[in-house]
Amino acid sequence: MRSINNELQLKAEAAKAAVRFMAHLSSKIKNRALENIATELLVKSSDLLAANKLDYSAAEESGMNTALLDRLLLTQERLESIAGDVMAVTTLPDPIGEIIETRTLPNGLLIQKKRVPLGVIGAIYESRPNVTVDISSLCLKAGNAVILRGGKESIHSNKALANLVCEAAARAGLPDGAVEFIENTDRSIVNQMLGMGNYIDLIVPRGGASLIKFVKENAVMPVVAGGIGVCHTYVDKDADLDKAVAIAFNAKVQRPTVCNALDSLLVHKDIADTYLPKIAAELVKVGVELHCDAISLSILELTPELKPLPAEDDDWGKEFLSLVIAIKVVASLDEALEHISRYGSGHSEAIVTEDNDTANRFLKEVDASCVYANASTRFTDGSQFGLGAELGISTQKMHARGPIGLKEITSYKWIIFGSGQIRP
Amino acid sequence: MRSINNELQLKAEAAKAAVRFMAHLSSKIKNRALENIATELLVKSSDLLAANKLDYSAAEESGMNTALLDRLLLTQERLESIAGDVMAVTTLPDPIGEIIETRTLPNGLLIQKKRVPLGVIGAIYESRPNVTVDISSLCLKAGNAVILRGGKESIHSNKALANLVCEAAARAGLPDGAVEFIENTDRSIVNQMLGMGNYIDLIVPRGGASLIKFVKENAVMPVVAGGIGVCHTYVDKDADLDKAVAIAFNAKVQRPTVCNALDSLLVHKDIADTYLPKIAAELVKVGVELHCDAISLSILELTPELKPLPAEDDDWGKEFLSLVIAIKVVASLDEALEHISRYGSGHSEAIVTEDNDTANRFLKEVDASCVYANASTRFTDGSQFGLGAELGISTQKMHARGPIGLKEITSYKWIIFGSGQIRP
Repeated sequence: MRSINNELQLKAEAAKAAVRFMAHLSSKIKNRALENIATELLVKSSDLLAANKLDYSAAEESGMNTALLDRLLLTQERLESIAGDVMAVTTLPDPIGEIIETRTLPNGLLIQKKRVPLGVIGAIYESRPNVTVDISSLCLKAGNAVILRGGKESIHSNKALANLVCEAAARAGLPDGAVEFIENTDRSIVNQMLGMGNYIDLIVPRGGASLIKFVKENAVMPVVAGGIGVCHTYVDKDADLDKAVAIAFNAKVQRPTVCNALDSLLVHKDIADTYLPKIAAELVKVGVELHCDAISLSILELTPELKPLPAEDDDWGKEFLSLVIAIKVVASLDEALEHISRYGSGHSEAIVTEDNDTANRFLKEVDASCVYANASTRFTDGSQFGLGAELGISTQKMHARGPIGLKEITSYKWIIFGSGQIRP
Repeated sequence: MRSINNELQLKAEAAKAAVRFMAHLSSKIKNRALENIATELLVKSSDLLAANKLDYSAAEESGMNTALLDRLLLTQERLESIAGDVMAVTTLPDPIGEIIETRTLPNGLLIQKKRVPLGVIGAIYESRPNVTVDISSLCLKAGNAVILRGGKESIHSNKALANLVCEAAARAGLPDGAVEFIENTDRSIVNQMLGMGNYIDLIVPRGGASLIKFVKENAVMPVVAGGIGVCHTYVDKDADLDKAVAIAFNAKVQRPTVCNALDSLLVHKDIADTYLPKIAAELVKVGVELHCDAISLSILELTPELKPLPAEDDDWGKEFLSLVIAIKVVASLDEALEHISRYGSGHSEAIVTEDNDTANRFLKEVDASCVYANASTRFTDGSQFGLGAELGISTQKMHARGPIGLKEITSYKWIIFGSGQIRP
């Protein structure tokens, strides 16, 4: 037994107690809670920005890098966008109570599979304070209680946001314990949460690879783990090269620090001579570093200003999260499939081709949560997919795969209506 | 790293390699494999019974108890019943390839959620040799490879059945590795399997509480755990007492050694005086031992030949798996709900009442995988529910709950058809 901090124990008990009520809340009350949250984000924006400034200044002083600072930052515009996301969740259908299946057996038993909340969801996240609101609003809408444990770096922002969420939810009539925020930022708290299988039904880690690994290895309850995206785009010999340039450029550059960004570009040998200089020129223009296999290197070295570098062995299967791309020339679709099967992380993979048979084989054979033909992997996202929002992106095969929206944070129960049936 | 036995390593690699082919097999080929299995079970019945006799005699000599001996035993009739179950799976719709959802986004992206196999399923089970065939046939139909690791006690039976399954599957055109049977019965093999997260996508433990606990605590991959059923039947004040006698009797007695059998009977105080002597008389007739709370004891002691015993504290929340029942008188539906919430294992719970409002409150508020009104909990079973068969019964909330049929051993992937879309 891990010994449990008193704050954590009390909050977990409160969350568990809330769950029995949460399961039966009307959509109206749940939506009202979300509307309150969205409104308050704007009403209290100056307080929130002031709290965020404390975090930001401390982080700046401690020498945090620009990418992390950017994740930490709240602005008026970002608050408005967060509020907009919360309002978007109010417009989604309430999944709870849905009758998923109905069957009547020959013996007269009426069996229904009915959607119910999962229970208590524990969220462990790092520096992005918007996660406090995003996860809370999804969890509440699906009738789940949530225990939030954000990173030390964003403690003032998270505390201010969590207080706002709690008050807004309570005002709508949600029970105490629906949203619990753990203020203690001691690292040992995370480990304690991971042992609380009697209180927490699901853990969602949101952060870097080391956090996710730690959570997976130490949690006694199910974990929705994902977020590690080693994403490939394969440019086929029958690709429209302009589309292929636009798609690969977008996937690599539009937001390089996130999981659905392009890491390795695979290019069919027949079009490598034409395609590689084109895409490389675009990438280099915005500062992307090219790590090339022998063949692509020999092609790109003909244009020295592209400064292609030889790829190291560990560039294959690496999630760069930065303006670095690995490039490899392959002899065939089969070689591309083989490479992706070996090095992919099961997140998002794309092919660019005008040949439907080739596209369909790729879509069929690649075993990943999201497989694209002729589009950027950057679309792997709950909002982009029309799910309204997401708790995270699962690269697991159990329970849910890809973006985790409202439906994915529910469970179901079987309800059986009888009239005295016994088993013969 | 746990060091891995060579047989296990090779078989796990073969299973993983098979998965890429299995995902694309036609229903026809998969059904043919199952038909071959069903046929061979009958053709080779004398060999199978001879192998089983070796196990049975050894178990008898070692002093195995009657209940376990019964689980181990194969007979001509049981083989026919197993073959019938396999044929039943052939008639079920093939879940693989089903388009679960389709949406077209405003930007023209066509998004589909398509059902795919889970991958490699590892089954760890104890003495019942039919599990070898049941699990294999479900896994194959859903396009999964399976690694079987049965108990020492049934090694000859399992080996004979697994060989039969492998040959039958190969003859239908399934790849090598589709079904792998681990012959080594050393206990350490189980622990090794549980560490093979790179090869096995899901572990299914089938057996007693200690096996399930061990698997849950040591597996690095997801586990479908269940099978522990602390099941209640609540007889309400508005129950039809004849139905209530029939339902409780059936739930307790029809097969007391299984997880969906009744453990604790809760009886409303208003009908306890009439109902308890009736049900107790039926139960005692077939040898059921009554463990009673103070009130039910005082009622049943009026009929000394029922030999009611006082319940111990640990009788509540105990899975008896035998002809023992705990009996408690409750003052209200609320007290029954409270008791079930505290002591239930989330498996199967039932109410007997003619009052619809009471029934609906029970169905709504009890948080268990299967909740019944006016029927025996003994129906919690894949075949009984019309799912054809089951891999087990999940008492978890993630992925699947209740009977695990074909659909529940699949995953899905998102397939995105674009025409050059990039993310703005």
